[in-house]
Amino acid sequence: MVSVGILGASGYTALELAKLLVRHPHVKITALTSRQEDARAIGEVHPQLNGRISLSVENLPIPEVARRCQCVFGCLPHAASAEAVRELLTHGTRIIDLSADYRLGDPETYRRWYEHAHPDPDRLGSTPYGLPEWFGPEIAAAQLVANPGCYPTSAILPLAPLLRDGWIDAEDIIIDSKSGVSGAGRTPKLTTHFPECNESVSAYAVGKHRHTPEIERILGMIAGRHVAVIFTPHLIPMDRGILTTTYSRPIRTFQESDILQMLRDFYSGQPFIRVVDHFPATKDTAHTNFCDITARIVRGRVVTISCIDNLIKGASGAAVQNMNVMFGYDQRLGLS
Amino acid sequence: MVSVGILGASGYTALELAKLLVRHPHVKITALTSRQEDARAIGEVHPQLNGRISLSVENLPIPEVARRCQCVFGCLPHAASAEAVRELLTHGTRIIDLSADYRLGDPETYRRWYEHAHPDPDRLGSTPYGLPEWFGPEIAAAQLVANPGCYPTSAILPLAPLLRDGWIDAEDIIIDSKSGVSGAGRTPKLTTHFPECNESVSAYAVGKHRHTPEIERILGMIAGRHVAVIFTPHLIPMDRGILTTTYSRPIRTFQESDILQMLRDFYSGQPFIRVVDHFPATKDTAHTNFCDITARIVRGRVVTISCIDNLIKGASGAAVQNMNVMFGYDQRLGLS
Amino acid sequence: MVSVGILGASGYTALELAKLLVRHPHVKITALTSRQEDARAIGEVHPQLNGRISLSVENLPIPEVARRCQCVFGCLPHAASAEAVRELLTHGTRIIDLSADYRLGDPETYRRWYEHAHPDPDRLGSTPYGLPEWFGPEIAAAQLVANPGCYPTSAILPLAPLLRDGWIDAEDIIIDSKSGVSGAGRTPKLTTHFPECNESVSAYAVGKHRHTPEIERILGMIAGRHVAVIFTPHLIPMDRGILTTTYSRPIRTFQESDILQMLRDFYSGQPFIRVVDHFPATKDTAHTNFCDITARIVRGRVVTISCIDNLIKGASGAAVQNMNVMFGYDQRLGLS
Amino acid sequence: MVSVGILGASGYTALELAKLLVRHPHVKITALTSRQEDARAIGEVHPQLNGRISLSVENLPIPEVARRCQCVFGCLPHAASAEAVRELLTHGTRIIDLSADYRLGDPETYRRWYEHAHPDPDRLGSTPYGLPEWFGPEIAAAQLVANPGCYPTSAILPLAPLLRDGWIDAEDIIIDSKSGVSGAGRTPKLTTHFPECNESVSAYAVGKHRHTPEIERILGMIAGRHVAVIFTPHLIPMDRGILTTTYSRPIRTFQESDILQMLRDFYSGQPFIRVVDHFPATKDTAHTNFCDITARIVRGRVVTISCIDNLIKGASGAAVQNMNVMFGYDQRLGLS
Repeated sequence: MVSVGILGASGYTALELAKLLVRHPHVKITALTSRQEDARAIGEVHPQLNGRISLSVENLPIPEVARRCQCVFGCLPHAASAEAVRELLTHGTRIIDLSADYRLGDPETYRRWYEHAHPDPDRLGSTPYGLPEWFGPEIAAAQLVANPGCYPTSAILPLAPLLRDGWIDAEDIIIDSKSGVSGAGRTPKLTTHFPECNESVSAYAVGKHRHTPEIERILGMIAGRHVAVIFTPHLIPMDRGILTTTYSRPIRTFQESDILQMLRDFYSGQPFIRVVDHFPATKDTAHTNFCDITARIVRGRVVTISCIDNLIKGASGAAVQNMNVMFGYDQRLGLS
Repeated sequence: MVSVGILGASGYTALELAKLLVRHPHVKITALTSRQEDARAIGEVHPQLNGRISLSVENLPIPEVARRCQCVFGCLPHAASAEAVRELLTHGTRIIDLSADYRLGDPETYRRWYEHAHPDPDRLGSTPYGLPEWFGPEIAAAQLVANPGCYPTSAILPLAPLLRDGWIDAEDIIIDSKSGVSGAGRTPKLTTHFPECNESVSAYAVGKHRHTPEIERILGMIAGRHVAVIFTPHLIPMDRGILTTTYSRPIRTFQESDILQMLRDFYSGQPFIRVVDHFPATKDTAHTNFCDITARIVRGRVVTISCIDNLIKGASGAAVQNMNVMFGYDQRLGLS
Repeated sequence: MVSVGILGASGYTALELAKLLVRHPHVKITALTSRQEDARAIGEVHPQLNGRISLSVENLPIPEVARRCQCVFGCLPHAASAEAVRELLTHGTRIIDLSADYRLGDPETYRRWYEHAHPDPDRLGSTPYGLPEWFGPEIAAAQLVANPGCYPTSAILPLAPLLRDGWIDAEDIIIDSKSGVSGAGRTPKLTTHFPECNESVSAYAVGKHRHTPEIERILGMIAGRHVAVIFTPHLIPMDRGILTTTYSRPIRTFQESDILQMLRDFYSGQPFIRVVDHFPATKDTAHTNFCDITARIVRGRVVTISCIDNLIKGASGAAVQNMNVMFGYDQRLGLS
Repeated sequence: MVSVGILGASGYTALELAKLLVRHPHVKITALTSRQEDARAIGEVHPQLNGRISLSVENLPIPEVARRCQCVFGCLPHAASAEAVRELLTHGTRIIDLSADYRLGDPETYRRWYEHAHPDPDRLGSTPYGLPEWFGPEIAAAQLVANPGCYPTSAILPLAPLLRDGWIDAEDIIIDSKSGVSGAGRTPKLTTHFPECNESVSAYAVGKHRHTPEIERILGMIAGRHVAVIFTPHLIPMDRGILTTTYSRPIRTFQESDILQMLRDFYSGQPFIRVVDHFPATKDTAHTNFCDITARIVRGRVVTISCIDNLIKGASGAAVQNMNVMFGYDQRLGLS
């Protein structure tokens, strides 16, 4: 049994995490923290959790969190997260950080994309990236794991095998992603006000989204060379789900069946990757930790289509999967 | 040609109004006001209006509005609206007030439901209610018209004929309404944040919604006696539309066909009321000024079902219809 | 460990059932049948089940189903279901029938509402109704259980305590329900074609819905007297969820707090009923087996608001809950 | 005044067309045809048209259509459309064909993509393409106009200026489109059944969509050279709207401002093209004939984002615009 806590329990990733953790046979939730919601029952903050968890949300000091929990999930905003993580680590707590703070490789890149100095710069570059399909052994051994971003997960999983084996040009990759609105978080704003974004699609942060350097860094590590991508996120009128379409240039002529077979071989032992022949829909993966992937050759280009639930495989499900790996459980525990 | 202005041009009713007015053959928009959006092009405030209206939104003083406009549409919040209306009236401007300020009959009721003193109490009770199907002559002669609320429009139109002719018990009426989210306005809040209200239905303000006294007052005027209703609004995950289901007790035995024929006779000359045999859907009336109505007898009760577009017949379309009546045009002008 | 099968595996209730059953610690799925989909992998019929269940759908004869399964869930259309159930019962199999076939009390009522003769008339009236909150002991002892309809579940749970204790008039009850589109099943038709029902609300089958006699029979059994309801279902543009608003007449004066306390007391030991003070939203119960209930007094009437996930507590979750009761497990198993 | 008819009045494009035509000041609708819906009032076929058009849908022979109408809008399925068009042309009627039948350049390409022989092969290649922003003079003089496809309109408008002036590589173009569900037509099928496609995104017909040769042909005519595109359509859970993101390679270095200025200059006299600085949303163009376009340079590639209402600028609005051009009216008539 692992005692776990969630830092920043009022958002959507924390809500999904809590729903998964109550179902996990070897987990006991012992702390839920929030600065704004101190002393409210979690069932009041998230009516979906009413009657499922009896804890209250508390504004707890870090040492108390460390005292209560063997494993902590960080759902704080970036920067605030690294502050908490740094302190927690001194207590020996194991941490899965769902913020973006430990995903990049160096403080300069972080500063350029997140527009402030990193509070814990020395750990950038050495913290394992929590994609168990690629970094299982590092995750198993880690005290701190950087849980991947939602868009990066959807883009890295189909592209990584092709890049690792050098099947595609590493500097001519287009990533066109479509995401549900929960990815924008729980703070109301005009762009996520129902009558504004319902029945509408739009692109945003074109060429400037913070997940760009994360995608490039991880794919670069896997490829063993510099990777450059054009990344365009789009907002879709649905709660959850990301569908990512990528376009890349093969370095020699492949058949569609070659690509599909290669992806199948790569992911054959991985319980959450489903390489399929049909075109997957985000709904096929909704409320699950699966990533569905297919590929086509169109006019000589490789087109991949992949989808995940942005709140599960793109955040909280991956976090539970990481915890399972860190604590030696079957990856699938609590995620069926 | 009528020169018109809109006070409070940044909300959804103003947007819909502007879209209708640019299409109206005898209207010229000469003023668009807003306190927060001063000097921005209207196409920036509402991208849908880009290239359709070249005016800017201005923070104009009332006398300047009066100088520019023969007719003003008030889209301000309640209380603020009555302040502006009172001053505009002194300049001789004709006004259609889309706020709730002039819909009720007396200052005490207003204070009880809106929780502040009315800024212009003497006009309560004497201002015509802008439902041309029932108050056409008063509207035609008026300088100021109180444009009806969206829920009241959807409830009054089916019930009024039955009450005027005394076919149903005036004190045993249940009104169960279902509204799209645009009815909640354009200010972002958690309840209208997409991932909260999408894929969900809920009731709100049960027994306490401010449209209750408006419904009772107008139905009471038409019935010539005291009317009491139970009114329950529900929030539906769609942009626009209201469907209202009412349950009332007939004072003697009627056939379904009697009720339908009676409604048809009442509204036979009215271009925007469609009494239908089938169950209407809000989509049938979306983006139009129509109200679709049907009725059934179920276990001895009269059940009516009516629907409108809350932003058109429930707000801006009705306002244009009122303007047409006030200025002697065909009611349908600009509304086809 | 219980070996279970699903008859009619291609619809939405079967899909939800399968998702719940794979998570259940004491269940092994051993048969999935379908006439149209013979020999297809279940992951092809329902891409969501890909990689979660390795069985194929088969067009199996009933004796083979009986041979493989201790417990069978019937997800066939009405009439077809009773044919299968009758034969299965002769083999000693325990059955939870999700069709409407065994919910009514007598063959005449069935014929009037379902427009054909009942294939197994003798069991009407004696088959336990699978609402464990009310009929737990009968369910525990039964070989066959009639799983409740979705609308009835949402309406019976709030009204039953009030009727059992005689707090409300049993013949003056209005039930106004709002349901997501999955309730209409998986067969495409114009009314559930996306561009028709999206962004729209409508009523249907007013006064004629087949769940009316089911609601009246069960409430009548609980009240110990004749119950008459007016039931109006509405179609809401969302996948899943039912919100039911009821209006009834108290037989004496109650406070809101009396009603809420009474409901809390009644359901205090029931893990899936949450009596709440706020207005619940269907999303609070989505993907769960909970039923959220609140109540208000408005102008002397009792107004209850309740919501469920129509596919879970309104169908497949209730079926698993019934199986747990029948096989002596904790009601919550597989439903957390 | 132009007398107009619609062939195939039961679908969504016919519905939108009828709504536009009733508003057009110089149009009189004189014929609405359908094979399946003979003799039904149009308001029964499309409840939205109830009370707006009093005509009935009729199964009319072509000579009678020609007798009644100066201008006919063809909303029939491909192949059936060319049969009707060929006969109508012999009567001297002017026709705007909304099917795909006259959009391609030669019968072989048509046969390859539409999988049957073209019924009127000689007119392929010589029929003007109804995009008035590019082919105004040809349209004005034509008896028959091929109304563009929805995806092609959204892709051609942003790319055409760049290709005509040779700013981008004509054989390295990626077009990633996102469309609402109405684009799939009004015939119910599983993929457009609400609970299947709601809350989900998916790609379809990747590399095989029939709009591919149409896009390539028209862009090729404008570029004066061979154009090759990769085109990926996606289905989005909304009624209407297409957002198209394109990725192309500039032949030399441009600034973002160069591209935007160039697009603005090209379309400066065009009332329905809005080149904007912000990222447009499909909702900005919903229910209008506008196409909103913006562009960015990302890592040396040109990224354009454009959106339209697939039923208006992508079908019926463009058809009315074409009629205006053919009959010498202001392009905007009936489209404000």
